[in-house]
Formats: sequence, structure tokens, C-alpha cells
Amino acid sequence: MSNNTNIVPESYPMNGGDGSNSYTKNSYFQRAGTNAMKAIIDDVIAEKLYVEKQISSSKSTFRIADLGCSVGPNTFIAMQNIIDAVQQKYQSQGFASHMPEFQVFFNDHTSNDFNTLFASLPPERPYLATGVPGSFHGQLFPDFSLDFVHSSYALQWLSKVPEELLNKNSAAWNKGRVHYESAPDEVAQAYTDQFAKDITIFLDGRAKELVVGGLMVLIMPGITNGIPHSCSATGLMFDFLGHCLMDMAKEGLISEVQVDSFNLPVYVASPKEMTQLVERNGCFSIERMEITQPWTRVDDLSGQTCTMHLRAGMEGIISKHFGTEIIDELFDRYYKKHGEFIGLLESKRNEGNQLFIILKRI
Amino acid sequence: MSNNTNIVPESYPMNGGDGSNSYTKNSYFQRAGTNAMKAIIDDVIAEKLYVEKQISSSKSTFRIADLGCSVGPNTFIAMQNIIDAVQQKYQSQGFASHMPEFQVFFNDHTSNDFNTLFASLPPERPYLATGVPGSFHGQLFPDFSLDFVHSSYALQWLSKVPEELLNKNSAAWNKGRVHYESAPDEVAQAYTDQFAKDITIFLDGRAKELVVGGLMVLIMPGITNGIPHSCSATGLMFDFLGHCLMDMAKEGLISEVQVDSFNLPVYVASPKEMTQLVERNGCFSIERMEITQPWTRVDDLSGQTCTMHLRAGMEGIISKHFGTEIIDELFDRYYKKHGEFIGLLESKRNEGNQLFIILKRI
Repeated sequence: MSNNTNIVPESYPMNGGDGSNSYTKNSYFQRAGTNAMKAIIDDVIAEKLYVEKQISSSKSTFRIADLGCSVGPNTFIAMQNIIDAVQQKYQSQGFASHMPEFQVFFNDHTSNDFNTLFASLPPERPYLATGVPGSFHGQLFPDFSLDFVHSSYALQWLSKVPEELLNKNSAAWNKGRVHYESAPDEVAQAYTDQFAKDITIFLDGRAKELVVGGLMVLIMPGITNGIPHSCSATGLMFDFLGHCLMDMAKEGLISEVQVDSFNLPVYVASPKEMTQLVERNGCFSIERMEITQPWTRVDDLSGQTCTMHLRAGMEGIISKHFGTEIIDELFDRYYKKHGEFIGLLESKRNEGNQLFIILKRI
Repeated sequence: MSNNTNIVPESYPMNGGDGSNSYTKNSYFQRAGTNAMKAIIDDVIAEKLYVEKQISSSKSTFRIADLGCSVGPNTFIAMQNIIDAVQQKYQSQGFASHMPEFQVFFNDHTSNDFNTLFASLPPERPYLATGVPGSFHGQLFPDFSLDFVHSSYALQWLSKVPEELLNKNSAAWNKGRVHYESAPDEVAQAYTDQFAKDITIFLDGRAKELVVGGLMVLIMPGITNGIPHSCSATGLMFDFLGHCLMDMAKEGLISEVQVDSFNLPVYVASPKEMTQLVERNGCFSIERMEITQPWTRVDDLSGQTCTMHLRAGMEGIISKHFGTEIIDELFDRYYKKHGEFIGLLESKRNEGNQLFIILKRI
């Protein structure tokens, strides 16, 4: 929409295609996160979703959007799970003969590889598939046109790096780091402020697009209330990436100025922060808000796994800043040095590092 | 949908990207066809489209689908024209303050280059954009979910080559040709039958998807009632392509068997045929049905133009059958020999070669 074009959030597509470095082949942490939540989503749909018997002879349509869907396969599993649960709800209410048609809107940035997404669609899917290019920090759908919104591992991406981080005269100048772990409080605060702005815009948009009674499931990296930013497992992986980049700068492979001007636009939020933002918006009731432990379900936390996982998600944004030629070297270093942090990561395996939220449009 | 997956029509994507052989840069015949029809579409929207004042405080949504949209830019021009006309209608009815939101569904085969399409979307567009991968010879949208359907230069593509053409024991075996001009009647009849089957499925699908009162604009190559198939300008270009392929077979660059087993799945229909198919369907009134002369608006009918035009549309399907290595050679020959048919083509410049239809869902 024309009023949408003033907002041009930066986009950081996941690695496309289905090669060995692709997001498709390296997104099982996210998949583990999604699977672990299935039972809870099923419960909330069974208890909280309002369904009605369609009176007219034509079928009704149940519209689901997956925001930040990337290229699959996680999005296909999530959509199938939701549809299974909604169908179950219709059946349990005795409305089996009035089952709606399902239409799924797969959304991600325009630069997402939609060709791969479309080519990978399950052939036997119980829904009509559509793709919606654009940022969820703006309007994507008509008013009151969605029955269900899902977003998994997407809301942690900020619409932009907070500007203060790049300002040498600011207390939030993030010299020698790429994230806010082990940074001064001002750096973390700049991230917190940007996240709050982004989520406010996100919730405003979805409040318009969701029907009253519609549900929204949000899954993202999270941190327990009161735990310092420096202690999150997700942040640990980013912090270590910063160390590898600084090592390369010290050896002259890249410049320190390049590292100083690079910051990962990713934020790990707590339930308390999200609760405040949802309450300030005022259009949603909180049906679930909890920190979960998806890593207890991941068997393999090896250096190889962690490296491939990080590379699939971060290669795009790192290449854009430093050039593609440093990528292999950077992740080689990351892999070789994983012994330095894998113990710490293992120790956090049973800690909560995922924020799981279900909201209902009221 | 699961009942959709048994139908897997063949797909022949237009050349993607925006290079010199791309459909984007070589689709001005189609664009001329679209522009010429703008005034008539405007009139029909002004006269026949039913619009109403939305009573609730929320905006209503006007949903438009472009079926067989390819990669642009023609589809963007067509969608903008339709929206301009619908907005004009709302204004002329005094409903300017109740303007709906517009949502455009860009549809084409899954193998279409949606990444290029999405990247080329006009930044200042007055609509929410979505992509719908899949064949229009099956269900694409929920029941009664579209207000307007547009399809330009797509319906001439058959869902498959009629099987009889490949059967040596059939009277419709199409030896030494790639289309039905100058072929026995049985060949043309096989094409006619396949086209009738495809259009029947197409109309059945759209009858479900369009709201009652919704309009459908169809633009495709056409031939005047009663004119023999061998005389269509569109067919002439295909016939000449067949000659070039047979020349290459005679020189041993490809085999004759390869040419015998290749047929262009494209049909050029008459108003009479389409009228019969629409009447048999029974769900649409015919608001316009005419043969038009778009070539009178094309300045450049040079060999270069004709060759690039044909290449952008046909390279995909020819490569699939003969391999990519023959493409440059084939179109070089086509270009060098254009003197043999350009006079004939020029003589047809003022003849009707486009079928223009507006239907209304009743």
C-alpha cells in the first residue's frame, strides 16, 4: 500500500535453495522449537478458537498467515499442525460437514527465495497456498482478513540496527562487538528500544488484520525474566561470532572499522517485556506466555551443528557487510574454536531460551 | 487442495529475469494487446460492476486475480488499470469515502519466476500483493473469494499436448510439424478437443471462485469465425518455427523423430468456440466477445522483434524437448529467414488476431 512504502525495513533472507548451507537443511533448532509447542497450540485451538456452523451452502474460508516463513520445510509442518487442530475442533463440535477451506499465506521479505518455497510445497497439502512478499513491520493483509497468525523465529529480527550503535559520540557505540552481550548497558538499551518500536508496529498491524477472536502464535528466542542479557544461550553464539570477527580483524583479514560498524539486528526478549508491549497495544488477550526449553529435544549440539545453524541464518547479513569472500574463513574459525564455548552452551541446554506466546484478538 | 493434485498440468514458464531474452523485455505484443483493451474494460467496469457502500466501519476488500501473470511488467499495468477503473466507479457512485482495499493475487505456474515478479512490484502500488503458484486448470482460490479475474495471453496454453499427435497409428499423428497449420484436419481437431476440455475446467473453477456479479476479462490470441486455422497470423509464426526445426533435422543437427514428437501446446480460438464453451458452462453472461486488431498499434513488426518475442515465450518449452544447445541456432535461423514470411505477416497486420472477452458471473 502506498502508506506502507515509507517503511522499508532491511531484509536478511535465510540461505535459499536446498544445498548443504541452506536454511532448508539447517533449521532443525527452529524445527525442534516448533514441534515442542505443537501440543500447547493444539490445546489452545481446542479451548479458545471460536468456530461456527456455516449457514450458507458455500464453504467458508479459514485464512492462516505464517509471517517470516523462510523457505521451508518448518513452515509446512507448522501450517499442517494448525490445520489438523482446527479440523479436530470442527469435528469435536459436530461441524465436520461444514469444514472450511483453508488458505495459507506464506509471508517473508521480498528477497526471500519464494521460488524454492513454492517448489517445495507439499503435493498433498490440505490448503490453497499463496505467497505474500513484504515486511511484517507494515501492512500485509486487508483489514479483518486473517483467522490465524503464526510466526516462528522471525520476530527477533529488528527492522534495523539501532543508529546509536554506529555513533562514535554515543555511549551506545558498540566498538569491537557485534551484539549486546558483554556490552555497556547503553548498547543493550538501544536494542531494547528498537525492539519495542518494532513490536509495537507489528502488533498494530496484526490487530487490524486479524478477525476478532483470531489467534496468534509467536515463537522466538527468549530469555527468562531477570536474567542478564549476557547469559542467554542465543546471545552466547552471537558473542562468539564477534570474537571470531575481531580475531580476523587483528590478523588484518578484515578491518576493525568494519567490525565496529557491524551489529546483528537480533534481539532476545523476556516474557515481561513482551507482556508490557502486548498490554500497551490493548487489542489482544494473552492466552499463553512462557519460556520453554526446546534444546532439551535437540540431540546434537556439536560444533558442526551450531556452525551450520548459525551460517544458514546469518550468512546473508554478514556477506552484505563484509563481502562473501570472508564467509568460509569465518565459519571455519567458528567451527574450529567451538570447543571454547560448547561447554558453556551444553550447560545451558536445560535453560529456557525460547519465548512462546499465544494471543487472542479481543 | 488434495483434490487438485491429480491434475498436474505441464508448465511452460516464460523466460525469467530481466536480461535481453527475458519475457520482461520481450512482451510488448502482449502489452499492446492489453493497452488496446483498456478503454473497453473501463466502460464495462463503469456500467456493469456492482459496487455497494460498506455499512460497517471497517474497510471492505476488493480481490483481483491475474491468472498466468508471468513476471511483469504487463501484469502490473493491467492491475493498475483495473483498480483505477474500480476506484472511478466508486467515486462516480458517491462512495469515495468507502473505497475498498485492493488485494491482488498474481498467479502462474509454480515454475514461474516469482522472485523476479516480487522484486519488480511497483513500489507505489495501491494494492496488497500476493503470489499464487499453480495451474488455473485446477482450484486456486476459496469459493466466492474473488471480485475480478483477469487473464491475458495465458488461456491459449493447453494443459498438455493432445496424445493422438504422438501416436503413429492415429490420423492425428503430426509428423514433420510442430502445430496444426497446414496439418490434416484430425490434428486441428485434436487441438480443438483439448482446448475445449481445458476451458471447461477453467470456467468451472472460476465459476466457483468468483462472487456473483464479479467480472472476468480474458485476452488471448484469436481467429475470426470461419477463417481456416492455416490463416491465423499467430499460427503463421509457429508454422515457420516448424520449418526451421525441420531444416535443422534435414541437416542432422537434430533428429526428425525429435521434431515429430514435439508439438506446441498452444491454441488459437474463435469467438464462436468460446461462446459455445461459456454457454455450456452456464454460470456467466457474455458482456463482450470480439476479435480485435492489436497489431495495428505495434510499430515494429521486424524480424528482430518477432524473433525475440517468440523466443521469450517459447524458449522454455523448446529447450525442455530439444536441449538448450539448439536455441541460439534455431532463433538465428528464424531471424535470418524472416524475409520469407514477414511480408505475409505484414499483410495480416490489420486482421483480427486477438480474442477479447468480458464475462460476468451470474
